[in-house]
Amino acid sequence: MTDTTTAFDPTEFRKALGAFATGVTIITTRTADGTPLGLTANSFNSVSLNPPLVLWSLANTSGNLEAFKAAPNWAVHVLASDQEALSGRFARRGEDKFAGIDVDTGAGGIPLLRGCTARFQCKTAFQYEGGDHIIFVGEVVAFDRADSSPLVFHGGKYAHAAHRDAGAKPRNPYLAGGFSEDFLGYLLGRSHFQFFGQIRPLLAAQNLTDEEFYILSALTLKEVVTADQMHEGMSNVIDENGSTAIEALVLRGLVRNVFDINGKSAYQLTADGSACALSLITAAKSIESQLLAKLGDGEAAVLKSLLNRLLNSIDPNANSLWHQSGI
Amino acid sequence: MTDTTTAFDPTEFRKALGAFATGVTIITTRTADGTPLGLTANSFNSVSLNPPLVLWSLANTSGNLEAFKAAPNWAVHVLASDQEALSGRFARRGEDKFAGIDVDTGAGGIPLLRGCTARFQCKTAFQYEGGDHIIFVGEVVAFDRADSSPLVFHGGKYAHAAHRDAGAKPRNPYLAGGFSEDFLGYLLGRSHFQFFGQIRPLLAAQNLTDEEFYILSALTLKEVVTADQMHEGMSNVIDENGSTAIEALVLRGLVRNVFDINGKSAYQLTADGSACALSLITAAKSIESQLLAKLGDGEAAVLKSLLNRLLNSIDPNANSLWHQSGI
Repeated sequence: MTDTTTAFDPTEFRKALGAFATGVTIITTRTADGTPLGLTANSFNSVSLNPPLVLWSLANTSGNLEAFKAAPNWAVHVLASDQEALSGRFARRGEDKFAGIDVDTGAGGIPLLRGCTARFQCKTAFQYEGGDHIIFVGEVVAFDRADSSPLVFHGGKYAHAAHRDAGAKPRNPYLAGGFSEDFLGYLLGRSHFQFFGQIRPLLAAQNLTDEEFYILSALTLKEVVTADQMHEGMSNVIDENGSTAIEALVLRGLVRNVFDINGKSAYQLTADGSACALSLITAAKSIESQLLAKLGDGEAAVLKSLLNRLLNSIDPNANSLWHQSGI
Repeated sequence: MTDTTTAFDPTEFRKALGAFATGVTIITTRTADGTPLGLTANSFNSVSLNPPLVLWSLANTSGNLEAFKAAPNWAVHVLASDQEALSGRFARRGEDKFAGIDVDTGAGGIPLLRGCTARFQCKTAFQYEGGDHIIFVGEVVAFDRADSSPLVFHGGKYAHAAHRDAGAKPRNPYLAGGFSEDFLGYLLGRSHFQFFGQIRPLLAAQNLTDEEFYILSALTLKEVVTADQMHEGMSNVIDENGSTAIEALVLRGLVRNVFDINGKSAYQLTADGSACALSLITAAKSIESQLLAKLGDGEAAVLKSLLNRLLNSIDPNANSLWHQSGI
């Protein structure tokens, strides 16, 4: 940051405000005639513990302003990371926002949305002037909470939050000019091999190598794979083109040679191969679930998302495993 | 979340409020006699665009309350992800918080901290009652911003934020019982091999395998490594124990056999090996930097942090590469 201040450009001011990360909330109320109302807001924050007060702001130009000014009660829903679509729905105008949504009924008959990470049922305490917005301060009369990861908004975009971990710092110091455990290549290599270290006993029990497992797994995705597709697809996940591994699988009767509709040499799982692959995949997924549960829901989603983005940044045109075949 | 509401337990209420993610700010001002003051707050939020207003809340019990009530100006600093220590410093009482910190001087002589992701210089517009807090609303008279990733607070802990990416969804559908590109093992394997795909041309130019590169790199961390340490350390990053790779490096004069102080068989880089390793590491780090720059600062930090946590969750007692030797 430079020491000079920026002249007042509304776009720049919005960008600067967007540098402050927030959760995302939906605020609901009902009109005097019982019509449910709701809107998305990220201007929420806590104010006071005793009495329990929270606040949020609403633009003077909002079509919902009069209803909220008149409402004795409203509810704040702090959205979970899987509620981005709900956030979008309540951010748009004119839609019947509650259509098809199951709601609970809270204090004052306010509609309460489900699946949020926290909900605060409030009665209006104060309404304060805030320039082109009104600041609504509510006293919390009831609340509930779930242990889900939050939806985050930052820089005008939705984001994930992942807790920092004091133990996650690289344990090896960064030696002058040398290698470090913070090097991404090391982290990826070690994660890859340690992850497969969990799965390898399952493979060993079936006398399968990592590569053979990759090939069997990949073949569950597509009935017939040509030799060319196999070599191209496999080059993304194993060091060599997999020929030896495929031959071994054919010899064991888990994969068979076939011809595709164009008469090209291709591979297909046998019934035994399919059974073997599916039982291993089920077991591997169970191991994956246990590991990801230790990491936490939100963190697991973030890790997968970032690995996908890393892959895209390494090769934006990279095919997915069988992308060329339209799957 | 169940539909039942929780009885009013202060700890539970704090937890529910903590479900709303926030950025972290430091608010500064100066007393009438010019003493700089500052405190950490996450109760900040934007209020109005025209006029430009922001707000934050301060406890009635704060020792700084009277100073802020009397101050015509104050400044909000939205902290960047690398400012966790600064956040902690300004959250503690009694410390000379500004000692040794370079500050700029803003409107009204307010001290401005550096390295933040956004700064808002404000004059007090309103002070509103907010239960056990006062809500300070300020008119922004100047601001600046930097493109750094934000420090985030959620669930009582510091967090990273990583933007979601619409393109990051797995492209292969999840087939019944089958493999999927969302499977962590696939993502790790593919990331690992694609990352090394960037580095491999460098290795090929030196006629080195991935394993040989790992060993050379690891040997830059520690002068003498016993055979046992090597095999144990390498089992974390390569499939086999690395014996063949080490022998090849010895034959090429990049590594030599030595004895450690206990007379055990050990390995050490030769001058050629050291030069070769350092030039490759420099090039590999440059490739890493380019990839991580595409991913973004915050995202890169989150990815590394999550991979470290994944490693810890796979094996909480896992040694780092040469952990047993006290490095």
